[in-house]
Amino acid sequence: MKEVSGGVCAPKGFKAGGIWCGIKAGSQKRDLALIYSEQNCTAAAMFTANRVKAACVLVSQEHIAGGKLHAIIANSGNANACTGEAGLAAARRMAELAADEFALSPAHVAVASTGVIGVPLPIAAVENSIGALANSLQSDASGHAAALEAIMTTDTRMKGFSVEIEIGGVPVRLGGMVKGSGMIHPNMATMLCFITTDAAIDRELLDASLRSAVRRSFNRVTVDGDTSTNDTVIIMANGASGAPRITEGSPAYETFARALEDSCVKLARAMARDGEGATKLISVTVNGADDETGAEILAKSVAASSLVKAACFGADANWGRILCALGYAGVEFDPGRVNVRFKNAVGDTAGEIAVCANGGSIPFSEEQAKKILSGEEIEILVDVGAGNGSATVWGCDLTYDYVKINGDYRS
Amino acid sequence: MKEVSGGVCAPKGFKAGGIWCGIKAGSQKRDLALIYSEQNCTAAAMFTANRVKAACVLVSQEHIAGGKLHAIIANSGNANACTGEAGLAAARRMAELAADEFALSPAHVAVASTGVIGVPLPIAAVENSIGALANSLQSDASGHAAALEAIMTTDTRMKGFSVEIEIGGVPVRLGGMVKGSGMIHPNMATMLCFITTDAAIDRELLDASLRSAVRRSFNRVTVDGDTSTNDTVIIMANGASGAPRITEGSPAYETFARALEDSCVKLARAMARDGEGATKLISVTVNGADDETGAEILAKSVAASSLVKAACFGADANWGRILCALGYAGVEFDPGRVNVRFKNAVGDTAGEIAVCANGGSIPFSEEQAKKILSGEEIEILVDVGAGNGSATVWGCDLTYDYVKINGDYRS
Repeated sequence: MKEVSGGVCAPKGFKAGGIWCGIKAGSQKRDLALIYSEQNCTAAAMFTANRVKAACVLVSQEHIAGGKLHAIIANSGNANACTGEAGLAAARRMAELAADEFALSPAHVAVASTGVIGVPLPIAAVENSIGALANSLQSDASGHAAALEAIMTTDTRMKGFSVEIEIGGVPVRLGGMVKGSGMIHPNMATMLCFITTDAAIDRELLDASLRSAVRRSFNRVTVDGDTSTNDTVIIMANGASGAPRITEGSPAYETFARALEDSCVKLARAMARDGEGATKLISVTVNGADDETGAEILAKSVAASSLVKAACFGADANWGRILCALGYAGVEFDPGRVNVRFKNAVGDTAGEIAVCANGGSIPFSEEQAKKILSGEEIEILVDVGAGNGSATVWGCDLTYDYVKINGDYRS
Repeated sequence: MKEVSGGVCAPKGFKAGGIWCGIKAGSQKRDLALIYSEQNCTAAAMFTANRVKAACVLVSQEHIAGGKLHAIIANSGNANACTGEAGLAAARRMAELAADEFALSPAHVAVASTGVIGVPLPIAAVENSIGALANSLQSDASGHAAALEAIMTTDTRMKGFSVEIEIGGVPVRLGGMVKGSGMIHPNMATMLCFITTDAAIDRELLDASLRSAVRRSFNRVTVDGDTSTNDTVIIMANGASGAPRITEGSPAYETFARALEDSCVKLARAMARDGEGATKLISVTVNGADDETGAEILAKSVAASSLVKAACFGADANWGRILCALGYAGVEFDPGRVNVRFKNAVGDTAGEIAVCANGGSIPFSEEQAKKILSGEEIEILVDVGAGNGSATVWGCDLTYDYVKINGDYRS
């Protein structure tokens, strides 16, 4: 697998664009995005587990049921959630507008929205700008960047990827973009993720590879424990690479699924790093659990703890809070066998230090621990001393700026 | 039920005291407390659900198994958690030291600790000061205040109560104290609560009344989602009032249980109001759920949401976050039937405003909503439009100061 440029436009046959249509009324920042494939695509998707689902999620769930997509239209600045029948009509209209531009069936267009909840979506803004949006499509990195900008809200960084693998000796590409920096918790969050590929692959296999990748990436990110109404991950495969069709159980499938998982992990880490107000990426790895699920639950409990997150912000080696968070995770383990280390592999503050052995304190240099915890990427390494279950979860520190950003989001 | 003064010393036969013994090495603030009854007491207790339990919790669980207590010894400044065999020995030694002073069985002494996790308890400080602690006992409000101060950590307010009821025409009193301001989440939190009463009541009834009261009070408080290793609630009943013994199903039991529940609710609200860095008490009431348990789960999800808490800090009427938090609570409901109101019954900012009806937006005055949400006690009133289930949960806003307090707790 090698990195290439282009984002969602890196795979053959895809174009993307983004414009300002007026939904973000105050700022003139891009707020309307389109991703389009010249060929109709095999598609798979996953949506929020929240019982309160945005109108766009309900409509996209209907459309994805057929397994085919030609385009994705998405907006930022308004979540189109808790907007009733009018919201549903607006979401359907968005799909229809995009479909009409390219003579597609509206059922082959997915819709996604992100932004404030409970405010009617100003659909007239989309109607007035759909032509300009279609005209903005480009087949290179600038199209990717414009579309990505148009789905960002409180994000501070562009988060995308594009890679190339070989299937049957033919280059195949995957590209993607993600937005998300708050309301992020296992089972996705206000995150939108759109992935394109020119691989040829059947629906069931595409779906399986997406579910597996999401489980080990986006579902292992926690920023603030809130699961949004709008989470959406969509993958579109148009087969334009000309590579042989990927079949179940083949080495080609392994290659494809691995590239997809690694890329999603990269995006997940970037999302955690870009958590609202975050100054640090925190990776929590639990080893020695009874199984992977148990390890994941324990690691999530640590990464989601407000007290652990605040201690990381303050570079305070308060490992007792880690044991405490393990203890209320709801998974059986022996507190007397827990070991904890802090690690940081980046830059001047790099180092590793053991702070707890067999569930108790051990002598360690507070100075060295403080230095390690001052880094921008902190690893919390936990071993619970039982089986072979292992999992890594990504989060971020809790800072003054998180409170600031979310104290008055709507104004 | 009428309020009286004296806290845990209000009921007959109880004394309390608190001193500085040196566990809080930096500050010379009181750190060692004793509550003592002249008569051996019927006692009941509840402890943390965390799998990682402090040494004092393990020892007190053993001691309470016999159903009798004569005294409680408690310290702040050190949680005696994750301290291994030495920690267990220290907790046993604390009980023994208190018992020796009054020629009691150590099994009739409960032990409680709160403070930093993973640091050995300096038991010598307790040994050197046990005489002074015993001498500090007083049978009035000043004894209560000294003991309460000695169990406080980041608490900014004294939280206690004392009330009088009548059982068979005889005055009976209950008094109590609580510490707790962070690491507070349903199923208790770093909270210590000690309640005294001169009622005569059997163990089983005392236990039942405590469990019922805790369920509707302390277990409905959430500050930061972390459940501590040290949570302890103890009630001691010495029968010194001379009132008739309370029997099962009697009006006297109802009177007693109601007084206990109301008092625990008062302490729970005070604890939420004193949440670390909090500027506001947030009460979330959910009506119209299928049952009380469903209402409680929904209300907890709203009260625990970082996004809702930050919006309350910013007085931002972002009701969409409330619907979102209901949606991921894991309880079935129809989002299209949800109504949300904000209310504030205190002072100049008092008022009430509907912000969401049938799951969607309704016109409301942003200015009035901002005013209501600027109050020190905000009520979020949710109706999910199904059954008769109702519950209230207490929390607080998320502020810059929470991050500050917890960014470097140990130094």
